[in-house]
Amino acid sequence: MHFYIKPKKKEEVLSTLKALGESFLKDIEDGKNPSVEIPVRTLRNVKFDAKERKIFLGGYVSKRYLLHLGQIRNFTQLAGVASLSKNLIEENKHISLREAFYILKRNIPGLHKNIVDEQEESNKAIEDLELVINALREQLHINANKLGAVAGNVVIRDRGDLIDWSKLGSGGWSVPSNVEDIEFVKVNAKFILYIEKSAVWERLHEDKVWKKLNCIIVASQGQATRGIRRLLQRLSYEHGLPIYVLTDLDPWGIYIYSVIKFGSIALAHISDRLAIPSAKFLGLTVDDVKKYGLEKHLIKFKEIDMKRLEQIREYEWFKNNKEWQRQFDLMKEMETKAELEALSARGITFISEKYLPEKIKSGEFLD
Amino acid sequence: MHFYIKPKKKEEVLSTLKALGESFLKDIEDGKNPSVEIPVRTLRNVKFDAKERKIFLGGYVSKRYLLHLGQIRNFTQLAGVASLSKNLIEENKHISLREAFYILKRNIPGLHKNIVDEQEESNKAIEDLELVINALREQLHINANKLGAVAGNVVIRDRGDLIDWSKLGSGGWSVPSNVEDIEFVKVNAKFILYIEKSAVWERLHEDKVWKKLNCIIVASQGQATRGIRRLLQRLSYEHGLPIYVLTDLDPWGIYIYSVIKFGSIALAHISDRLAIPSAKFLGLTVDDVKKYGLEKHLIKFKEIDMKRLEQIREYEWFKNNKEWQRQFDLMKEMETKAELEALSARGITFISEKYLPEKIKSGEFLD
Repeated sequence: MHFYIKPKKKEEVLSTLKALGESFLKDIEDGKNPSVEIPVRTLRNVKFDAKERKIFLGGYVSKRYLLHLGQIRNFTQLAGVASLSKNLIEENKHISLREAFYILKRNIPGLHKNIVDEQEESNKAIEDLELVINALREQLHINANKLGAVAGNVVIRDRGDLIDWSKLGSGGWSVPSNVEDIEFVKVNAKFILYIEKSAVWERLHEDKVWKKLNCIIVASQGQATRGIRRLLQRLSYEHGLPIYVLTDLDPWGIYIYSVIKFGSIALAHISDRLAIPSAKFLGLTVDDVKKYGLEKHLIKFKEIDMKRLEQIREYEWFKNNKEWQRQFDLMKEMETKAELEALSARGITFISEKYLPEKIKSGEFLD
Repeated sequence: MHFYIKPKKKEEVLSTLKALGESFLKDIEDGKNPSVEIPVRTLRNVKFDAKERKIFLGGYVSKRYLLHLGQIRNFTQLAGVASLSKNLIEENKHISLREAFYILKRNIPGLHKNIVDEQEESNKAIEDLELVINALREQLHINANKLGAVAGNVVIRDRGDLIDWSKLGSGGWSVPSNVEDIEFVKVNAKFILYIEKSAVWERLHEDKVWKKLNCIIVASQGQATRGIRRLLQRLSYEHGLPIYVLTDLDPWGIYIYSVIKFGSIALAHISDRLAIPSAKFLGLTVDDVKKYGLEKHLIKFKEIDMKRLEQIREYEWFKNNKEWQRQFDLMKEMETKAELEALSARGITFISEKYLPEKIKSGEFLD
């Protein structure tokens, strides 16, 4: 059988999980070999939709059987995760990927084999299940790490608490790993700023940027966590807010933007729930180096930077983008990178009072 | 001249900075060579006070002159940081270590030399200044990275906001890099739990551990940031709360505990403001492996784990501690480590409902 429903609510996820288990049971009762179809997640099945500007998973599907020497282990792992998730949802408990691993590292009664022996196995089974029942891992109540903070004119409801993101002092609200159940009660903002570095977030927060520019400021450290990406996407889709991504000028910063906007290869199967194709790049550009007099503060490329740059410029979603290719050409020529913090050489609050307002006003975004 | 006052309030830090600058000026006007005494921070000057159980800096002091070919650079960097900090405090702005570097990477008028060329230089000058005026870097308005979250029955005032740590949903309050200006308005808790992993924090938070055990739960990821350590110390000292540290059973977890309790070699000069000698270890022990049936979930030591274990057991603060040496002996014998998440194999909420209450009730702490 092949599940391809799009469950949105908790009850739907739960009933899909139950239906999956029942279909296995029925196959057994009918003397059939239980099976499940899983879209293939290898690179050859990862595509880029140039029109929608989103990485997505192609149509290749593989069928996995219970009674098959090479497939029984994967099949059992998938069933194990499905059973665990069903219990979690029913008990309204959430666990981490690491906890899921330890829980599944147990003997199958009557056998001297564990369901999983390594976390890679449980992680893979969880990702497979995401695909099979078309729900997010977070909807299966399994979370990754929590990271990042947010501030802005927003009020949310979460676990019964009413939380005002504009009244949380210097710290802000700590973004949980799972934002699926958060309810946005009031959202008063014109756009969202995702910042690559928490130290820069603290700069903008102290300078009251979210108040002055009427926006929401969000940061984790480096790549945005899934929790953050879901938060950005929900705010963008449910409240029509543009997302601006603020990073350093280097291949790593540009890839942070790329993942937020187009999705990633590893998570191509859930681009729909993570990617934000309308996101814009508000980070440092090669042109900013001259414009803001940062020449003195450039940092020499290491070999690994150049290598990463060469990889990124070849990505399908950048390959035919003239603006970006121009940036890549110039970066290659300069062989240097520049950090957001370099702007502080122009004045402590330069980034808050000049750089951001000017760029946003003039609409100088890379897309 | 030699500063060794203990400035506590903002005004005191500011006046000490001014006095430092004025002393330099006066020396110049008097035709003297301006100088400053800085306690030596090399390993030979780092000691352990067995009675107070705290790492501290010994009495070696070096004198640094402005007009000295080998010292003028360091002297100027120190003066540069002092001047920057004075401005920051007066303008009530905070910056990151990275921003401080970029601000100080500027020409001295009339010379073709930068005050600093590398961040290591500005970092070192900032640490020197901490010593010279006996104030925390945070009091100089220079911060490191922000990380971590907190929840509990506590109300604080910060930047004019009244923040209730018990009403922040699943996320909690995001701990800023600098907690010096936070005011504790209401603290209703019996102890504080510092957790090595944010995923375990989410476990305890979902299970309402802080409510059930009447405590405060704090986590960052790995080593506690300075912001977190200051938060723990302030809560411990100002409100008499014991600190319990919850980590994995491995040399890295034990070192996280070690730093919170005894301080660190690198920051020996500010142990007074960071170390919490009364902190107790509530993490997994070798005995817990048997007691809670975790044998199945042990992870084989890598070479680096064994090496780190050998280093840690030789630290002066562990060397004469029989209890810890017994743990180290057994760890060496087993050659394995165990993670907190392994407890979830006993049940999702086992850590919250069994492990923690039992251990705390029976007072089973390593000290």
